[in-house]
Formats: sequence, C-alpha cells, structure tokens
Amino acid sequence: MNWRRRQQHLRAALGARRPRVSRIRPGALPGTLAAADAGGPPVIDVMVFDHDRVEEDRVETIDAALAPLAPGAVTWINLDGLGDASVFARLGERLGLHPLALEDVLNVPQRPKVERFDKHMFLVMRTMRLEGSGTPPAASAAATIVDEQISAFFGGDWVVTIQERSDGDCFGPVREAIRKSRGRVREAGADYLVYLLVDSVVDAYFPVLDTLAERMQAIEEEALSSASSEATLLRLTRLRHDLIAVRRAVWPMREELTVLQREESPLILPETRVFLRDVYDHAVQALEIVETLRETAVSVMEVFLSVQNQRLNEVMKVLTVIATIFIPLTFIASIYGMNFKHLPELEWRWGYPAVLGLMLLTAGGMVGYFRWRGWW
Amino acid sequence: MNWRRRQQHLRAALGARRPRVSRIRPGALPGTLAAADAGGPPVIDVMVFDHDRVEEDRVETIDAALAPLAPGAVTWINLDGLGDASVFARLGERLGLHPLALEDVLNVPQRPKVERFDKHMFLVMRTMRLEGSGTPPAASAAATIVDEQISAFFGGDWVVTIQERSDGDCFGPVREAIRKSRGRVREAGADYLVYLLVDSVVDAYFPVLDTLAERMQAIEEEALSSASSEATLLRLTRLRHDLIAVRRAVWPMREELTVLQREESPLILPETRVFLRDVYDHAVQALEIVETLRETAVSVMEVFLSVQNQRLNEVMKVLTVIATIFIPLTFIASIYGMNFKHLPELEWRWGYPAVLGLMLLTAGGMVGYFRWRGWW
Amino acid sequence: MNWRRRQQHLRAALGARRPRVSRIRPGALPGTLAAADAGGPPVIDVMVFDHDRVEEDRVETIDAALAPLAPGAVTWINLDGLGDASVFARLGERLGLHPLALEDVLNVPQRPKVERFDKHMFLVMRTMRLEGSGTPPAASAAATIVDEQISAFFGGDWVVTIQERSDGDCFGPVREAIRKSRGRVREAGADYLVYLLVDSVVDAYFPVLDTLAERMQAIEEEALSSASSEATLLRLTRLRHDLIAVRRAVWPMREELTVLQREESPLILPETRVFLRDVYDHAVQALEIVETLRETAVSVMEVFLSVQNQRLNEVMKVLTVIATIFIPLTFIASIYGMNFKHLPELEWRWGYPAVLGLMLLTAGGMVGYFRWRGWW
Amino acid sequence: MNWRRRQQHLRAALGARRPRVSRIRPGALPGTLAAADAGGPPVIDVMVFDHDRVEEDRVETIDAALAPLAPGAVTWINLDGLGDASVFARLGERLGLHPLALEDVLNVPQRPKVERFDKHMFLVMRTMRLEGSGTPPAASAAATIVDEQISAFFGGDWVVTIQERSDGDCFGPVREAIRKSRGRVREAGADYLVYLLVDSVVDAYFPVLDTLAERMQAIEEEALSSASSEATLLRLTRLRHDLIAVRRAVWPMREELTVLQREESPLILPETRVFLRDVYDHAVQALEIVETLRETAVSVMEVFLSVQNQRLNEVMKVLTVIATIFIPLTFIASIYGMNFKHLPELEWRWGYPAVLGLMLLTAGGMVGYFRWRGWW
Amino acid sequence: MNWRRRQQHLRAALGARRPRVSRIRPGALPGTLAAADAGGPPVIDVMVFDHDRVEEDRVETIDAALAPLAPGAVTWINLDGLGDASVFARLGERLGLHPLALEDVLNVPQRPKVERFDKHMFLVMRTMRLEGSGTPPAASAAATIVDEQISAFFGGDWVVTIQERSDGDCFGPVREAIRKSRGRVREAGADYLVYLLVDSVVDAYFPVLDTLAERMQAIEEEALSSASSEATLLRLTRLRHDLIAVRRAVWPMREELTVLQREESPLILPETRVFLRDVYDHAVQALEIVETLRETAVSVMEVFLSVQNQRLNEVMKVLTVIATIFIPLTFIASIYGMNFKHLPELEWRWGYPAVLGLMLLTAGGMVGYFRWRGWW
Repeated sequence: MNWRRRQQHLRAALGARRPRVSRIRPGALPGTLAAADAGGPPVIDVMVFDHDRVEEDRVETIDAALAPLAPGAVTWINLDGLGDASVFARLGERLGLHPLALEDVLNVPQRPKVERFDKHMFLVMRTMRLEGSGTPPAASAAATIVDEQISAFFGGDWVVTIQERSDGDCFGPVREAIRKSRGRVREAGADYLVYLLVDSVVDAYFPVLDTLAERMQAIEEEALSSASSEATLLRLTRLRHDLIAVRRAVWPMREELTVLQREESPLILPETRVFLRDVYDHAVQALEIVETLRETAVSVMEVFLSVQNQRLNEVMKVLTVIATIFIPLTFIASIYGMNFKHLPELEWRWGYPAVLGLMLLTAGGMVGYFRWRGWW
Repeated sequence: MNWRRRQQHLRAALGARRPRVSRIRPGALPGTLAAADAGGPPVIDVMVFDHDRVEEDRVETIDAALAPLAPGAVTWINLDGLGDASVFARLGERLGLHPLALEDVLNVPQRPKVERFDKHMFLVMRTMRLEGSGTPPAASAAATIVDEQISAFFGGDWVVTIQERSDGDCFGPVREAIRKSRGRVREAGADYLVYLLVDSVVDAYFPVLDTLAERMQAIEEEALSSASSEATLLRLTRLRHDLIAVRRAVWPMREELTVLQREESPLILPETRVFLRDVYDHAVQALEIVETLRETAVSVMEVFLSVQNQRLNEVMKVLTVIATIFIPLTFIASIYGMNFKHLPELEWRWGYPAVLGLMLLTAGGMVGYFRWRGWW
Repeated sequence: MNWRRRQQHLRAALGARRPRVSRIRPGALPGTLAAADAGGPPVIDVMVFDHDRVEEDRVETIDAALAPLAPGAVTWINLDGLGDASVFARLGERLGLHPLALEDVLNVPQRPKVERFDKHMFLVMRTMRLEGSGTPPAASAAATIVDEQISAFFGGDWVVTIQERSDGDCFGPVREAIRKSRGRVREAGADYLVYLLVDSVVDAYFPVLDTLAERMQAIEEEALSSASSEATLLRLTRLRHDLIAVRRAVWPMREELTVLQREESPLILPETRVFLRDVYDHAVQALEIVETLRETAVSVMEVFLSVQNQRLNEVMKVLTVIATIFIPLTFIASIYGMNFKHLPELEWRWGYPAVLGLMLLTAGGMVGYFRWRGWW
Repeated sequence: MNWRRRQQHLRAALGARRPRVSRIRPGALPGTLAAADAGGPPVIDVMVFDHDRVEEDRVETIDAALAPLAPGAVTWINLDGLGDASVFARLGERLGLHPLALEDVLNVPQRPKVERFDKHMFLVMRTMRLEGSGTPPAASAAATIVDEQISAFFGGDWVVTIQERSDGDCFGPVREAIRKSRGRVREAGADYLVYLLVDSVVDAYFPVLDTLAERMQAIEEEALSSASSEATLLRLTRLRHDLIAVRRAVWPMREELTVLQREESPLILPETRVFLRDVYDHAVQALEIVETLRETAVSVMEVFLSVQNQRLNEVMKVLTVIATIFIPLTFIASIYGMNFKHLPELEWRWGYPAVLGLMLLTAGGMVGYFRWRGWW
Repeated sequence: MNWRRRQQHLRAALGARRPRVSRIRPGALPGTLAAADAGGPPVIDVMVFDHDRVEEDRVETIDAALAPLAPGAVTWINLDGLGDASVFARLGERLGLHPLALEDVLNVPQRPKVERFDKHMFLVMRTMRLEGSGTPPAASAAATIVDEQISAFFGGDWVVTIQERSDGDCFGPVREAIRKSRGRVREAGADYLVYLLVDSVVDAYFPVLDTLAERMQAIEEEALSSASSEATLLRLTRLRHDLIAVRRAVWPMREELTVLQREESPLILPETRVFLRDVYDHAVQALEIVETLRETAVSVMEVFLSVQNQRLNEVMKVLTVIATIFIPLTFIASIYGMNFKHLPELEWRWGYPAVLGLMLLTAGGMVGYFRWRGWW
C-alpha cells in the first residue's frame, strides 16, 4: 500500500554503494602531485624512541618532523589527512621518496601493495572500521564500513605513515606499547615497528568481520520469520556488496604480506620475518572468514527465495481451496434457481433441507478429500 | 497454521552457526599471552617410553612434566584445556618455544599450519567429532559437530600436544599402541609418534563425514517424500554450513601435510616420510568426500525446489480443473434462472431433465478433454 | 493420485548413492593388516612368459605363485578378491612390499596414485564396468556402474595385480595378447606389461561413458516429451551422481599417469614412456567427455525445468481463458435472473434470443481478442 | 494444441548431439591398426616443390607417393579419408612412423596434440566447417558444424597430412600459394608449410564462430519477440552444445600451439617460430570469442526465462482482473435474484436502472483502482 | 498493450552487440597486407624532440615523416586511420617491421600483446571511450562504448603509433607534456614516451568504468522502483555485455604489462621499469573494478527478478482475496434465489435484512481472518 514510502526507505538503505573508482585525473601527467580535495594540511605526529627514552611531539612542518631523525633511535612520523600536496612534496624531497610512490599516497584508493626502492620500502595498506555505531546491538545494523588507505615508507631507522582520513586511528595500541615499552618494540628496529603497524591494520578487520557475521545471522533469522520482505533482500544485497568490498581489500593485503615476508631487503631483519608470517596467517584467516560469509550469503539468498515462495504458495492454496469448495455449492443452488415449470424437487416438502444437506455433504466431502491429499 | 511454533522450531534448528572468528583481542600486543576464558588449569599427562619401558603419569605442574625428559626415550606431554596462561608461559620458557607459536595455541581457532623453528617444529591441527549422539540412527540428526584445535610441538625426543577442550580425546588408540608396543612405535622416535598423532586427527574426520553422508541421504529421501517442508530446507542449509566448516578445517590440513612431507628438517627422518605421504592421501580423500557432498547438496537443493514446485502445481491443477468444470455448468443453470416471459424451454415437459443431461454431457466432455490432454 | 507408489518407485530409483567412505577402521593402528569382510581367500593366477614360452597356472598359495619367479622371464601374478589378509601378509613378506601399500590394497576404496619404493613401484587404479546389462537398449538404463580398485606392484621382472572384486575382470585381452604373442608384449619387460594393464583399465571407461552419454540423450528427449515427470528429474539426478563418481575416479588416474610418465625410475624403460603418454591422452579424453556430459547435464536440467514450467503455464492459460469467458456470460444471465418488478427486457418478445445472441457475441469477442493477443 | 507435431519438430532439432566417444575398440591391443568403417581407400595427392618448380600429382599407392621424395625439395603428401588400414601401415613402414601415432590417426576423434619423435613430429588437429549452408541468411540456422580430424607428420623435407573425411578440404589457399609462389612458401622448408597448414586449420574456426555469433543474436532477438517459444529454448540449447563442442576443439589447439612454439626440435627453424606465435594468437582469439559467446548464452537464457515469465504474468494479470471485476457484479445481480417476499428494492420503480448504475460504478471504480495501482 | 512498439524499442536498445570477430580474410595468405575498408589514407603527425627543442608537423607521406629521424632526438610518428595499405607497407619497409606485425595492425581487432623483434618492439593495445555523450547525466545512459586498437612500434629513438579510428585521440595530454616539457619526458628516451602512451591508454578506462558504475547504480535503483520493466532487464543485459567487452580488453592489457615490465630488452631502460610497474597497478585496478561490477550485476539481476516476482505476487494476492470474499457471498445469495415452494426464510419479515447482515458478517470475518494471517 505504501509503495512510495517503501521506495524511499529502500533507496536510503542502498546508500553509497558505487565502487570507489580511483581519483586518477584524466589528462594529468604521472609524477605530478595534486592535493586531494579534503580538508586542511595533515596533522603531523612524531615519536622518537630507543631502548631508554620515548619522545612524542605534534609538529607543524615536515622539516620540524624530520629534525630528530638520527641513527640509533627509531623515528616514527605519522601524517593524518592528505590535505596539502606541498607537505608531501617536501617529505619526498627530504627522504628521497619516488614521485610515483607519493602519487599513490595521494591518489586514493590504491590497491594494497609493497614496493622496494633503493633506500626505502613503500607499503600501501587498506584498513577498515565501523562508523556510526552507538550501542552495539541496534547500531551494528546501521553502522557503515569505512575503509581508509594507509601508506607507509620505512628505511633503516625511520617509519613514515600516512593516513587518508584525519579522523579515526588504528595505531593507538602501538603507541601505548612504545610508551610502556611492552614486548620487544623498544629493543627492535624500524622493521619491527612496521610489523606492529601492519598487524594493527590486519587486526582491525576482525571486529568488522564479526559485525558482518552478526548481520548475516540476523538476516538469516529474518528471512525465516514472517517479517521477511523486500527490505530483507536489500539488507542481504547490501551485505554482499560489503563482503565484495572487504574481499577487495583483504585479498591484496594477503598478497602484499606474501611479498613482504619473502622480500630479501636488508631493511627487514630475519627475526622479524617470523612475525610477518604470523600477520600473514591472520590475513589468510580474515580472507577465509570473508569467503565463508560469501558462501553463506548465497545459501541465505536461496532460503529467502524459497521461504517467500512457500509463503505465497500457502496463501494461494488456502484461497483456492475456499473458492473450490464454494463453486460446486453455488452450482447446486443455481440449479434450483432455474424457473422450469416442471422441476419436481421444488414442490417437495423437504426439498430445501435436503438440498442444504446435500451442500453440507459436498462441502464436507471436499474438505475431507483435500485433507486426505494433504493440501490443507 | 502454527506459524509461530514453526518459527521457534526453525530458529532452534539454526543453532549456533556463526563462523567462529578468532578471539584475537583488538588492541592487544602480539606476543602477550592471555588465558582463554574457559575452565581451570590444563590437565597434564606424561608418557615416557623407549624400546623397553613405558611410564605414564598425571602431573600437576609443567616442571614435573618436563622432569623425565632425557635422551634415549621419547617423552610425550599432553595438556588438556587452555585454562591457565602461566602454565603455557612456563612451558615456553623451559622448551624455548616461540612466543608467537604459544599465542597461536591460546588464541583458538587458528588455521592448521606447520612452522619450523630452530630446535623444534610447531603444528596446528583441527580435529572434529560428533557430540550428543546417543543411539546412532535417531541421534545422528541431532548430533552437532564439535571442532577442536590441537597444537603440537616436537623436538628430537619430545612431543607436546595441547588440546583446546578438556573433554574428549582422539589419542586413545595411540596410547594403547604405545602401551602394548604395537607396530613400530616403541622402536621409532618422536617423529613417528607425531605421525601417529596426526593420523588419528585425520582419521577422526571419517566418522563425521560418514554421518554427514547419512544425513544427506536422509534429506534427499525427505525432499522426495510428501513430508518435505521448510524444515527439510533448513536441515539442508545446516548441512551445507557444516560442510563449509569441515572443508575449512580439512583444506589447510592437506596443505599442512604437503609442507610436512617435504620439510627438510632433521627432526623428521626419511623413513617417516612414507608414512606422512599416507596421511596426506587420507586428507585428500577426506577433502574429496567433502567436495562430493557439496556437489550433492546443490543437486538435492534443486530436487527439493523442483519437487516443491511440482507438488504445488499438482494442487493448483486439480483445483483449477474442478473450478473450470463447474463454471460452465453454473452458467447453464443461470440461463434457465432468467425470468424472461418468453423463454420456451421453461415450459417444456422434459426441459429440466434435458438440462441436467446437457450438464452431464458438458462435464463429461470436459473431463474427457482434460484427460486426453493429460492434465488430470 | 498414486503418491505412495510413486514414492516407492523414486526411492528404489535412488539406489545406493552414498559416496563410499573408505573403510578405515577408527582406532586401528596404521600398518596392521585386516582382511576385508568379503568372501574367501583370493583366487591366484600366475602367468610366466618370455620370448619363447607362456605358462599359465592357477595356484593355491602365494609361495606356489612366487616359485616360478626367475630372471629372464616376466612373471605376472593376479589375485582376485581381498578375502584373506594372511595371503597379503605373506606376499608382502616375500616381495618386500611396504606395509602401508599393502594396507592401501585392503582398505578400499583408495584414491588412484603411484608410489615409488626402493625395489618396486606401487599403483592404485580404479576401473569401472556396467553390471546387470542384459539386452542393450532396455538394460542400459537399468545397469549400474560398478567400480573396483585394482592395485599393482611391479619390479624388474614381476608384476602383481590385485583386484578388489573376485567377479569380472578387464585383463582378458592382455592375457590373450600374451598367449598369442601379439604386439611387442613377449619381447618387452614388466613395464610394458604394466602399460598394457593400465591401458585396459583406462579403456574400460569408454563403454561406461558411452552408456552415460546414451542415457543423457534419452533423458533429454524425455525432458522434452509429454512423459517428463519427477522420474525424469530423478534419472537426471542419478546420472549426475554417476558423473561425479566417474570424475572422482578418472581425475586422479590422469594425475597418476602424469607422475608415471615422468617418473625417473629405472623400472620404466624410455621406450615404454611413449606408450604411457598415449594412455595419458586417453585418460584426458575420458575426463573431457565427463566434463562435457556434466555441462550437458546442467543444460538438460534447465530445459527440464523450463519445459515443466511451460507445460503448466499452458494448462493454466487454457483453464483461465475458459473461466474468463464464462464469468461475464454468467453475469449477463444473472442480471436477467433478478426479480425486479420493472425490468422491461423480461417482457420483450425477443428478449431471450437477444440475450443469447449477446452472450454469443461476448464470448466470440473475447475468444477473438485472446487469439489476437496470442494467448490461446 | 499440436503437441505431437511439436515433439517431432523438437526431436529433429536436437539432431545428433551425443558427444562423439572415440572409437577405441574395447579389447583391441594397442598398436594394432584397424581400418575405420568409412568408405574406400584414401585419395592421395602429392605436391613437390622447391624454389623453381612445382609438381602436382594424384597417385594410387603410397609407394608412388613417396617416390619423388628427395632432399632439396619439399614433398607434401595429402591423404583424404581413412578407408584402408594397409595404406597407413605401408606409410608407417616407409617413413618409420610410430605405431601409436598411426593408431591415433585412425581412431578418430583424438584430442589435438603435438608429439615429438626422433626423426619426425606428429600433430593432431581439429578443423571445423559448416555444412548444408545454401543461401547465407536462411541457411545459417540450418547448417550443422562438421568437425574433422587432421593429422600431420613432418620431417626435414616432407609433410604428410591425413584428413578424416574425404569430402571438404581447408587447404585450398595453401595449394594456391604454392602454385603461384606467393609469400615465402617456396623459399622456406617443410616447417613453414606446416605453419601454413596449421594456420588454415585455425582460420577455419572464424567463419564458424561468425555463424554462431549470428545465431546467438538471432536467438536473442527471438527471445525478446512475441514468437519466443520452446523452439527458441531448443535453438539456444543446441547453440550451447555447439559452443561446448567448439571449445573442446579449440582449447587443446591452443595448448598444442604453445608446445609447438616452444619445441626445441631442429625440425622447426627459429624464423618459423615468429609465425607460430601468430597462429597461437589467432587460436587464443578464437577461444576468447567462444568464451564470450558462452557468457552471452547464459545471459540470453536468463532473458528468455524472464521474458517468458513476464509474458505469462501479463496474461494472468489481465485475465484475473477481468474475473475480479465481474465477480462482485454477479454478486450484486444475485442479491436481486433472491426470492424474498419482503425485498423492497424489487418493488421500486427505478430499481433496475439503479442497480445497473451501481454495477457500472463498481466496475468503473475497480478499473480505476487497478489502473492507479498500475496493474493494468 | 503496446507490444509492437515495445518490441521495436527493445531491439533498438540491443544495438550492435555481436562480438567483433577479427576481420581475418578466409583464404588470404598470412603476410599479405590488405587495406581496411574504412576511409582515406591515414593522417600522419610527426613530433621530434630532445632536451632543447620540439618540432611538430603534419606530413603527407611516410618518407616525409621518417626524414627527421636522427640519433639524439626522439621521433614520434602518429598515424590516424588504417585506410591505405601502401602507407603501412612503405612504413614496414623503411623501419624493417615484421610483416606479421603489420598484418596485426591492419586486421583489427587483435588481442593486446607485446612482441619483441630484433631491432624494435611491437605493442597492440586497446583503448576505450564513450561516444555520443552530451550533457553528462542524461547522456551517460545513451553513450556507447567505442573501443579502438592502438598499435605501437618503438626502437631506440623512435616511436610509431597507429590508431584504428581517425576520430578521437587519447594522446592529447602526452603532446601537451612534450610541448611544455613537463616531467621527465624531454630528458628521457623513446621508452619513457612509450610508458606515457601506455599510461594514457590505461587511464582512458577509468572514465568509462565510472560511467558503467553510474549506470549500474541507476539500473539498481530502477530495479527497485515501480518503473522496473523489461527495459530494465535489457539495460542490465546490455551493461553485462559491455562489461564482458571491457574485460576482454583489460585482461590481456594486464598480461601485456606483466610481459613488458619483465622484458629484458635493451630498448627499455631500468629506470623506466618502475613506471611500467605503476601502469601495471592501474590495469590491475581497472580489472578489479570490472570484476566488482560483474559481481554486482549478478546480484542486481537477482534483485530485479525477486522484485518482479514480489510485485506480481502482490497483485495476485489482492485479486484472489477479492474473489475469495465475494464467492461465499454469491453462494448465500444464490441459496435464497432457489425456487423451492417450502423455503421458510423467504417468507420472514426480516429475512432480507438478516441475509444482508449475514453477508456483511461473513465478509468482515474473512477480511479479519486474512488480516490476521497477514495476507492483506
């Protein structure tokens, strides 16, 4: 009845689902840096630490950020936001970063990958988180998945990470670990810090996958309940779109970790490789959960369609049974509604009750027959 | 009619089907051990044997368990349950196990894999069994598949196995073989014991697969019987979920066995490789049964839908035929129910029997026609 | 109407379709031989031949069978049936066969494979034949596919073949060729005999595939005829199960032949490799026919469903058209069945014929309209 | 209505679609040549050419064909038809061809492949052409695809080609090129001639693919027109069978060309390899067209089913709307057909016109409502 | 109602969708150049540049174009259109291009590929653009994808590009970059120019993909709206055809870039390889968007069918409910239309109102029941 309102509801549910096409400017020459549209200049945080000390600072310029860089300590520079191209141009100049790598930093989204240069390595990663989630149970259905590109450069004793979005951050635990000198982080070098950062990126997938698995279960239950409707189908479709998007992020992360683990660069120490193998296992696990959810989605779709079908069939069956019972009765009545002069039953004393009885018998017989055939 | 009760039934049938997402604690630093929630400290069983003797003991602490460890004999320490992290920390310390491996032991479920370290090797395996199975025929439908992670470390003359769940155990036959000195077990070293353990893990798949195959056949028969309903669909869906879960366990086991078989570690003697090839064959066989069952599930689904469809079609056909027969008859009756002054048939002496005869002829003709067309 | 009888028919048609799960005894220790349940001790046939002579004999014991084994001649021992484990234990002892290989011989079905040992090679193959086929056209639908494991060991001048089932045998032509010294068989060594044996195993697939292709065509024709019913669907389902089973046998045979062809064992002479390449081609061809049949099965399924659908649609259409024509007519009649005092048409002299004419016109108009729209 | 005639039509349309199972004679020993059933002895054409001269001849015997074979010139012997096994036996004897290769020549169809022997190479190819095509537009639907095995042996200065069917020939342009000394053919050796022959075989696919693409478009248009019927479905099914058959021929041709291109035989000169790479590209292109057509076939199937469905839905909708409009009207009429003594409306002067008006209003209201809901 | 007009509309929408089969002339000898049908002789543009100068010229003949070719500067010759074979023959002669490569230039479409010759390399690429797009939002649905083959030869200091169509050009930004000496282009050699050209070809995919993604979203919204119809299905089908076509172009481009990147030709300098890796990443990205869109297309199809189904079900449900309500009412009325002499209710004073009341109650009861069951 409320077709129009449902339409609006459905359109809203569809949301922004168009796959993000990389903002490569047609006609732009490769190697030319252009600032992304979003916001002001990036926020720059610097952390310098060695076995004995940790220094944290929020600075204004790249030059200030690079000032503490010195052998013996690890310097981690984190940039939040892609707002000001000149910052990245300066960064590239100071650290000798390849222009194409810097272009990949700014032209989001790029496919996760690892590239080896002479004096540094370059990583593109893709993290994910849920946004708009208030109280868990209700909100988990409303929360949307936000994916963000995280680029990282690292050399022997420095790491630069660049986050696409200035809000949100998945590196909190790493900072905490450095401050409190937890684990081996203060003993090890830049490569171990990189491992910790990659690990937090991959770990960030699991809460998202958990939410998707919850949604899948909720949709499956809904598909079986009497409340299933077009909206259920749409929620399922949206979930499948989300799964495609997540898979598109996780799959190249797995490839990237395979490459990183086997990379024979002197920048990655042998003892760090064991740890990278561990992150690789996590990425494979995330991928398997995605694949399992995708297979589940297909079978939930089938269940949905089958239940929809059965529900309609039930309606049609009962209605048709009712119609079928009354049609012969009406036929009997119409016989005795004929105006023949010579229609003996009409004259009978008990004609009317007899016909009513006949009708009852007919109806009862049909009901019995339908029941015996199992249609009712 | 009993929609609500069926709903409850169906929800119950769905059970706990959400894929288990690994309990990686977001924000925790890798390499930090945390006890799983479940239960008390693990039960520790020690078996020491060489060609001449077997000693079995249940001990309280890891140090007690490690006491008999000495060259010349094989020491097998089995821990049941993941309850107390300090036990595992102590174990790691004494045997020099890698922290990441210990973390994998505690953060279940991990993907089956094999990792080689300097002085020992580390295996993650996944076993399966049916639980809640009383008398076989009735219970096989009710029994749920329980999967459990079994981790193993082994060096030159020791093996440590860690079982996720403190109940159930698939190593009984191995223990018996050691006690009774069956086969080569007392002559061979730790690697042969590992082979026996892996073999029992893989062998445990076959009764589970057998039960799934039985269920599949029962569902196929049900799909063809008049009793097929939404519940059949649900049982099929649940079976498909189970098959996905089993496949997710068996597939990496196969990979793991490929790696183990080709591993050039001095910890695995050449004569043991032939045996590992044999377990590998069993894992491939299990995988093939799973794939065959998955393909069967798809065709059972098609049969189910087709039979459902045909059943409804049959109902609709018979009902429509009945309606179609009576509608023209009612039309004839209503003609002679018209009140025209000049309607000559009404005056006829044999008008009424003639019309009844016409009706009989019409009905008979239609039935005949329908039968000739094969619709009835 | 005869639901129950059809049920029985369908269940019978389903037959024994559960995938055979290997009879690995849970809890048994690997390397322990156990006789299969079936029948008495195996029948042992020995053939010894070189360029000049052929000796054939049926012996009672393994020792008698091994007696003629001598350099310079090829000895072929064929065992029919797996009845008595001690026979195989003795065989293994005398020829130095690996216990695991012997276990694979007895625990059928194993996956086809080839294994190389120090002094001999071990092959597991899977042959197939149709059973219960009387007169070809009628019986081809009734015949069931029987698959059988054939194991073979061979050394430099001996070949041992073990057939799972004591009935049936696909080695007749090979025996005939040896007796009549056809081709190179009497000049060549044990490896050429092995090639001939493998070739007969692979050749046995083609009559089976031919029968399956015939069945597929019969089902396709049936799906298009008016006789298509649930039984057609079941025959198709059964055929698909058969195809899955055949594929499961042929696929690893192909792998096995790849391995055998590349095996650098001195037991296989270079001139025999050309022949193995030829058998490999045959196995690939068999596999392609299976895949083609599988693709055909999917499209036959679609045709079946579409034809079923169209048939029902046709029924519904004609019936609904009939109903639609009579409903307005009955409406007209019921108008003149109203008892209004002032209903002028009832008084008209030609009222009745006029109404009958109106009815004819209406019916004719609707039929014409339906025909114009192409619905009838 | 004309079910039986349609049946016959459909069966005729299905034609001979059973996949050709290779005529391997069960029980025959490998290496034994047997003439195929078809026709008389093969027609033998010989062409000898070098830079200066071309000689063409049709000879009776193999020995006559081999007579002109001499170094310095290229001899091309073409045999049309597989009729007489002794001819091939003699050919094999004279040129030292491997018995298994000769067997592959006679036991058609074989899978396309390339085999290298000591002194010669052996190719199995599969060509295709349309047969029964008269005037292009009408006939393209009626023409059937005929596939034919073409085998070729070649050495340093001779090429032998054997065509399965004595009718038809795809080597006309090659002959013409030799006669008129077009391109490099008279300068180059036997390997260049082989390239030209393989090229004509692969080029022969394109007209066939073009016809299939035309048919696909015709079927797609038909699926959308009001003329779509079971026959459309069958044409589509037949086209899909044809595509499977074509793919089965083209796929191994591609493999074969990969092998040929990388073959390190001295029989293939380096400058010929560039040309083989070109034929390889054509084969890949043919394969891509086949795959595109297969994907198109799937989506045409979906369109067909959806259009069929929508057409029926439209019929049902209009018919049901008609029924729904007249049922309430008939109800109103039947109320005033009741015989109650005290039914005041019956006495009214304008009762009849009022009821007619009420009926018009009801019908109009329902039509309006249905239109507003967009059902009509 | 307007079946014929819709037919025409649909056929128009289908457009020219037959896959372009390469215009290989059956019967033509390889290596023979034949001018394509289209247009006059190609337009020839020459650009010569080194660090200091840029010269641009439009010339008439190939010889004039090749005149400025000299070491130390890069000469880029661009030919627009394939009209005159003699031009290409002359080009091949002057630059020593392989006849097969020239044939591939003229016989469009070829599969994208890279081929290495002694003194030059040969690339076949496929670009795409939208044509007929006026104002973006409205036109994006009408614009058709035009694909064009771009062939390129390059040596140490020259590049020749040949565009299939004389209209349109995707090299504008490259020309601009050379003129304004942007980036490294004037410093680097021919290989860097080739990189820039390949980069513009790959970048041209993204606007096309963006349009396809927009169309997909529009179709998805339409599929959910009440306006969805056969035309929606056709738009979706057409989009899927477009995606297949795009995939067929992008997939081999990716392969080609893999080869180019790993090619060990001295014509490609090591510093250019980094840039080729970057184009490769873009091609992979384009491919992933295509795959995502293809998966989306499948789920939009499912949504379309499900929504179509639900809409019809809704219609049928309401209509059937109406029929079911009136049938029992008509039955009641027909009872009191019977002409029995002794039918006491007919005599009652309040019989008529009582029966009307009974009808109201019955109708109300059924409506209530249907609402309770949730069918209305």
